[in-house]
Amino acid sequence: MNLIVQKFGGSSVRDADRIRNVAGIIADTYKAGNNVIVVLSAQGDTTDDLIDKAHEISPNPSKREMDMLLSTGEQISIALCAMALEQMGIPAVSLAAWQVGIQTNRTYSNARIKRIDRERIQSELDRKKVVLVAGFQGVNRYGDVTTLGRGGSDTSAVALAAAFNADLCQIYTDVDGVYTTDPRIVPNAVKLPEITYDEMLELASQGAQVLHNRSVELAKKYNVNMEVVSSLERKPGTKVKEVANMEKTNIAGVAKDTSIARIALVGLEHTPGVAFRVFSLLGKGNINVDAIIQSIGREGSKDISFTLPRADVSEAVRLLEEQKSTLNFDHITVEDQIAKVSIVGAGMMTTPGVAAKMFEALYDANINIQMINTSEIRVSVLIDQEDADRAVKAVHDRFFGTGE
Amino acid sequence: MNLIVQKFGGSSVRDADRIRNVAGIIADTYKAGNNVIVVLSAQGDTTDDLIDKAHEISPNPSKREMDMLLSTGEQISIALCAMALEQMGIPAVSLAAWQVGIQTNRTYSNARIKRIDRERIQSELDRKKVVLVAGFQGVNRYGDVTTLGRGGSDTSAVALAAAFNADLCQIYTDVDGVYTTDPRIVPNAVKLPEITYDEMLELASQGAQVLHNRSVELAKKYNVNMEVVSSLERKPGTKVKEVANMEKTNIAGVAKDTSIARIALVGLEHTPGVAFRVFSLLGKGNINVDAIIQSIGREGSKDISFTLPRADVSEAVRLLEEQKSTLNFDHITVEDQIAKVSIVGAGMMTTPGVAAKMFEALYDANINIQMINTSEIRVSVLIDQEDADRAVKAVHDRFFGTGE
Repeated sequence: MNLIVQKFGGSSVRDADRIRNVAGIIADTYKAGNNVIVVLSAQGDTTDDLIDKAHEISPNPSKREMDMLLSTGEQISIALCAMALEQMGIPAVSLAAWQVGIQTNRTYSNARIKRIDRERIQSELDRKKVVLVAGFQGVNRYGDVTTLGRGGSDTSAVALAAAFNADLCQIYTDVDGVYTTDPRIVPNAVKLPEITYDEMLELASQGAQVLHNRSVELAKKYNVNMEVVSSLERKPGTKVKEVANMEKTNIAGVAKDTSIARIALVGLEHTPGVAFRVFSLLGKGNINVDAIIQSIGREGSKDISFTLPRADVSEAVRLLEEQKSTLNFDHITVEDQIAKVSIVGAGMMTTPGVAAKMFEALYDANINIQMINTSEIRVSVLIDQEDADRAVKAVHDRFFGTGE
Repeated sequence: MNLIVQKFGGSSVRDADRIRNVAGIIADTYKAGNNVIVVLSAQGDTTDDLIDKAHEISPNPSKREMDMLLSTGEQISIALCAMALEQMGIPAVSLAAWQVGIQTNRTYSNARIKRIDRERIQSELDRKKVVLVAGFQGVNRYGDVTTLGRGGSDTSAVALAAAFNADLCQIYTDVDGVYTTDPRIVPNAVKLPEITYDEMLELASQGAQVLHNRSVELAKKYNVNMEVVSSLERKPGTKVKEVANMEKTNIAGVAKDTSIARIALVGLEHTPGVAFRVFSLLGKGNINVDAIIQSIGREGSKDISFTLPRADVSEAVRLLEEQKSTLNFDHITVEDQIAKVSIVGAGMMTTPGVAAKMFEALYDANINIQMINTSEIRVSVLIDQEDADRAVKAVHDRFFGTGE
């Protein structure tokens, strides 16, 4: 008998019909002889509606109370889905995080799971019940409700799969798998049957929205077999695992990120320790810097450019301007009409010429590369934002064909 | 320093403005130097909306899952109200029933409170926080969420007041106290400054909707001083206590109940044990019978009439018809166009002529009395439903004057 964890997102449970559909998937899995743990997100816009309610009361509500408020959304979903299963004759029980014992650290609104108690869930599974767990939430050592931050329900699902050594952790979404690139930009994008954790991580952090990084990191750490699959169509999804068989394709996909900006510090003194001071300052301000380029400028000064989430630009500029006299730079430039396009693939290192093939595709499409940044399984280029979709298509066509 | 428990119902917290208003009342109580425990109901129509959601999924959802679902409503209220208090600079913390430790029996959807743990609330009070507790809910020995049934938040408030030996338990509603009768029927109804537990119980069970009986019974048992007070106007309410000073009025009020029906079993055999068999049958069917009248009919047979909630009529008739051959009656008549009008007063027993004064008022108003039923502090008459409001006014005028 297998143990399967199934996670359904907010759009998959947004109304009674969708909940019945989800209950049908769960019922089939259960009737096939599996033990099933289900993790649900809040219905559709519930979380946003609750956030609106909070902001009508206070512009800056405390995170403890915010977590108390938001955690109700998932509880509503699991209770309704348990009713739908019972209505189908499937024994089911809904459990909030405090009932399961999903122990987190004390950081409200962005808590980390420390430990999951197995007892309650195991006793329900032993009684042949489908166990429905509220995603996105935990409880800290003070007995207070915490939430796990963005992508929290995926994290709940993978953590449960790890704690119970599940055979499979299925993430049901409204897409049917992981594609070589965004099918809305490139219609001939191909669904990948398999992808490695590392590739998924690079694709996710480069802008693919299918899975949240934290859940993939956790899956990699505990070697949880994941599968991204559609809750609307019954067909195979994409398996995410340690080693994937990539066969014909040497890259897994092409990703685009248009939510970034580039900051340049111009005319820094050419003395040691300048870069250290700049990036420790930003680190203390909780600003995640991505690609960094340092260049020697005129007359012995140098420039430092780096990319960062566009949302953090004003805070970064404020921090840097505050320290202008210490850092001793001439001025700051901000470029926010940029995009990052990346190719990702575990086989890249062992396949010569992959990066060159990407650059050639961009050159042929007459797209100017501003910066290049690479990791072991990724090559990213920074380009003008207006060229982004064209670049994705050109690179994808070069690696996967035009589909014509 | 006093400890005050304040309970606010659903309409008192129905939107952001009302929540701010409630937070203002709480803040004033806190700033006056009191410890404050607050109990909140779910906002406005939240509970009904959640019930609708459940019924879209299942015509008959399990009570366990229903409680899991409904308990989210109060949690939303307490989190939002905590935010409103924090916004006013008042330290506050919201606690769901499982965090407080409101232990109930296992009866889902109509649980009874068995015990309240004091630790968590006391530690928050010691830290000078306003403690906001989710009303209507508890947790059973299995660690499952239960709800307390109708009037549950009032019960939560009184139980907390009893557990913490509070100096006062204020029930805030959208009326400003307990009146001698319904002011919508009799405009010159008078607000009572005080009322005894027993009078309140009789008034409540006779149709006055201000407080739920369970909470008053609990208050009487633990001698909790209650006060019914308006959340919209800052003025004195009605105190509910063991001994009230009734001064000039010898009755506390006039109540009307139009939700009842009368069933008559006609032509029963005039043998011993018939009444016992009839009412044990209805008791087993969980049907609460109120007034009973037995009369000798023609030819040695007898009739038994009794009143019961109108909602239970079809079930009662079904049970009786099923046993028609055993009970050996001729036929059943059902009269549902009736009403019960009652006068209630602790001083009634020691004041001769109170019942006669009521009957006289009804006679003068040309209203026919079908049945009479009395307790130590109550006299009820059964009359035609179309006469009900006229009867209330006539009786009220006789005892309290016409206000002219």
